[in-house]
Amino acid sequence: MKIVVIGATGTIGKEVVKALEKEHEVVKVGNSQGDLLVDMTSTESIAALFKKTGRFDALICAAGHAKFSSLNELTYEDYFLGLRNKLMGQVALFLEGRKYINDEGAMTLTSGILSQEPMPGSSSISMINAGLEGFVRAAQLESERGIRINCVSPAWVKETMEAMGMDSSPGIPAAQVAGVYVESLKDSHRGEILDVRRYL
Amino acid sequence: MKIVVIGATGTIGKEVVKALEKEHEVVKVGNSQGDLLVDMTSTESIAALFKKTGRFDALICAAGHAKFSSLNELTYEDYFLGLRNKLMGQVALFLEGRKYINDEGAMTLTSGILSQEPMPGSSSISMINAGLEGFVRAAQLESERGIRINCVSPAWVKETMEAMGMDSSPGIPAAQVAGVYVESLKDSHRGEILDVRRYL
Repeated sequence: MKIVVIGATGTIGKEVVKALEKEHEVVKVGNSQGDLLVDMTSTESIAALFKKTGRFDALICAAGHAKFSSLNELTYEDYFLGLRNKLMGQVALFLEGRKYINDEGAMTLTSGILSQEPMPGSSSISMINAGLEGFVRAAQLESERGIRINCVSPAWVKETMEAMGMDSSPGIPAAQVAGVYVESLKDSHRGEILDVRRYL
Repeated sequence: MKIVVIGATGTIGKEVVKALEKEHEVVKVGNSQGDLLVDMTSTESIAALFKKTGRFDALICAAGHAKFSSLNELTYEDYFLGLRNKLMGQVALFLEGRKYINDEGAMTLTSGILSQEPMPGSSSISMINAGLEGFVRAAQLESERGIRINCVSPAWVKETMEAMGMDSSPGIPAAQVAGVYVESLKDSHRGEILDVRRYL
């Protein structure tokens, strides 16, 4: 299969690439490095990306930014930046990507457990992750040509916690998280939110 | 109590006003008629609203627009208009309103069952409703001064179905839906999504 991976150089993305590239042709996409570049906040940039990838069989997005900060500190611009990037950026990847994906193809986006299990500081991220999950459930209902859309909801990643100087013992290694993205491409998943913790 | 009702002349809102005004002082807010006017897409208009209401004890928002249409017909502008209006409009009502609400006050926003139970055509509305629910769950965790935030999730309203020429027999009368908004103001609800069907 030809698989487009967005966020291919990120903590999760590079493990996704590693898991896929033995058996598949992987097109690595990033915002600053990769085979191809994309600006997630720009629907024009996303539309232009697929002119370069051409037709493909599957897409995984492990990219998308939203700000973690307290209610008292988040500005409206912070909220809107997350909406444009992690939410509508991924919606646009699906809407534009479905014009180029082959029949029976699968696209997998990324939310995160803060959608359902918030913590202080997560109001913007929880809103965006939950919104993406709502979109995924709905969009599958209007699928054409057997195209599937799913979403992986990662818990805290071990490597991210280490990089942030946190106690990483409850974290899940990125390579294990990547395995759930590979799982999501299977034919049995349609409009699902795959909570990473259920697949360990 | 002094209660601010946004969308006071809408199908649900006018029943909310009717249920509250026997016992409370109700400030009726609309986008084109009411005691005060507000533009839900403008955080400046929302901030200005509370300068006019002054301090209050509770707020109910039964307003917010997002477009119901197929994936093939929705434009990015349609998605963003819903994000600005029903999602960030309600987020801004909470963020600005909490500067004016009295201690132990309650604010109730509106999502809708399409967040969890989508149908073809609901991709934008499902995304926005689910996003709002994610925000409400998270925002309650950073509550100050005992302020509460909840969300009512209405099912199909009988009067709306009649107005749209649909079979209204599965619909719930607006007066019954309004009762759930009144229920949501009670002290026992904190960061909850009140599914209207559970309260009939």
